[in-house]
Amino acid sequence: MNPPVVLDAMGGDHGPVATVAGALLAWREHGVPVMLAGASDVIDAELRKHEALGELPVAHADEVVPMAGSGAGAAALTRSSLAVGCALVGRGEGGAFVTAGSTGAAVSCAVRGIGRAPGVLRPALAVVLPALRGGGSVLVDAGATADPSPAMVAQFALLGAGYARAVLGRPDPLVGLLSIGAEPGKGNRLTRRAEELLAGLPVRFHGNIEGHDALAGVVDVIVTDGFTGNVLLKNVEGCVRTTLAMVAEAGIASPGRLAEVARRYDPETHGGAALLGLRGTVVVAHGSSPPATIARACVVARDLARHDSTAREPVP
Amino acid sequence: MNPPVVLDAMGGDHGPVATVAGALLAWREHGVPVMLAGASDVIDAELRKHEALGELPVAHADEVVPMAGSGAGAAALTRSSLAVGCALVGRGEGGAFVTAGSTGAAVSCAVRGIGRAPGVLRPALAVVLPALRGGGSVLVDAGATADPSPAMVAQFALLGAGYARAVLGRPDPLVGLLSIGAEPGKGNRLTRRAEELLAGLPVRFHGNIEGHDALAGVVDVIVTDGFTGNVLLKNVEGCVRTTLAMVAEAGIASPGRLAEVARRYDPETHGGAALLGLRGTVVVAHGSSPPATIARACVVARDLARHDSTAREPVP
Repeated sequence: MNPPVVLDAMGGDHGPVATVAGALLAWREHGVPVMLAGASDVIDAELRKHEALGELPVAHADEVVPMAGSGAGAAALTRSSLAVGCALVGRGEGGAFVTAGSTGAAVSCAVRGIGRAPGVLRPALAVVLPALRGGGSVLVDAGATADPSPAMVAQFALLGAGYARAVLGRPDPLVGLLSIGAEPGKGNRLTRRAEELLAGLPVRFHGNIEGHDALAGVVDVIVTDGFTGNVLLKNVEGCVRTTLAMVAEAGIASPGRLAEVARRYDPETHGGAALLGLRGTVVVAHGSSPPATIARACVVARDLARHDSTAREPVP
Repeated sequence: MNPPVVLDAMGGDHGPVATVAGALLAWREHGVPVMLAGASDVIDAELRKHEALGELPVAHADEVVPMAGSGAGAAALTRSSLAVGCALVGRGEGGAFVTAGSTGAAVSCAVRGIGRAPGVLRPALAVVLPALRGGGSVLVDAGATADPSPAMVAQFALLGAGYARAVLGRPDPLVGLLSIGAEPGKGNRLTRRAEELLAGLPVRFHGNIEGHDALAGVVDVIVTDGFTGNVLLKNVEGCVRTTLAMVAEAGIASPGRLAEVARRYDPETHGGAALLGLRGTVVVAHGSSPPATIARACVVARDLARHDSTAREPVP
């Protein structure tokens, strides 16, 4: 039997109310064994509500990392549900880690508790952006490393290409570098140097792409720094919401029908964001995730862990 | 009589076919006197098609800056329609400059030919993003300065606030810094330092905003570096297009009705982008602008020049 998926029971806007219900869904509906990391009394109380005390294992953690804190403090790095959960995966007692908590703290705890994969300079967050045609594109880095060097950005391309092969089934992914002009040499200091490095790496490099290409499906992998990637990801979220609200307000279509379109943008389709470049699998779900989304993230984490163990390749 | 608006007749995807027709529209329909800068034989041939030879003054220029070049070369900086047009404004023979050509080349030629306003470190491009409620927000810098220092970014806030007062009629504009977390101190090296500087400047500083706030109308001015701003602006363009195409494809609404919503995002509503921080007015229209949009940009440039001469204030 595979080791369980470890879920940060304290993370997310709804805390254990959503995470414990999500873990039970993942186990009962999808057969994913889940271990809950967090304050055991609080978790037990939630399990009791579902008449499930003892149904899932619990790993106790004293501390909780606040959702909107300024990074992880010393106690958070060792004694929080994030830290305890990552340590379990690092020791092989957990098969993958899932959190709906703060991305920044998750990155810190994962690097400390699970460790970077050999040769990886910095981890990167990967999310799948939808496209009108085809299965969408992997955006990497969507917010793990805010100030990467050009070499780190170039390496994100390798991490993203591995993810596109394993998760999206693209045998030879095409990689584009997000910039402010399609021609070679256009961009800022970071992208101009990253562009040179990318040309020498073993990836199929398309060249620069621009902001309007992000949802056009022109490449399989969109590479950028974690600052720009996070701004872009959240801008897509806000832009879709505003555009659909304008359509609804103009009386052109009903909000119900428009929700179908909104769902095409739901990052949870792919189980949230995956933190790439580690020795183990980490999935970061949206803070607002309801139980069904938490369950979906656990399923994806289990599947990703299988991919990771078979498809992990050394990074040049 | 005011000096004419100088129009780069050679800029834009459609060249003189669109610009000359646009200039005639601006003059005949809106009473804006326009001077055409570019190859006089080509311009004269276009004017002749409209039976308008001699109706608008022409300033001859030998060179054309290619739309997709890698910046402006030496000849482009002195002898192109961009350079000749900016020099006319710099000498006071033109009241404002309009181009649908390359933004990068326009910035170079404008700094050289018109000059920076006293105290301004770098120019910044301002565009108005729509919002569901209210008149939208000024995004600055949308692509003039790709690698600004923190001091430059902080100064963009002052330039943007001046534009919001003059053009959007906001008496005391609220300024937000685009970052990857709303809490103080969240962001990359550039935004963290810019945030500190902004707190000491004479603007009403809201603090950090995130990508999903860009179209939410929470602030009057969105401040960012020219790289992130340009990616965000083009991402909005692509995201609106993809979202409306998904709505159309789902059969929920007709493309015709959806075009009404698309128009709310049209940057030409405000006459294109304004290049701020110069001694004169420069408007950059979209490369694909048809004649009506060129005409609108000329009207806006005339109005902005009036604002500029009355409302220009020293930058700390």
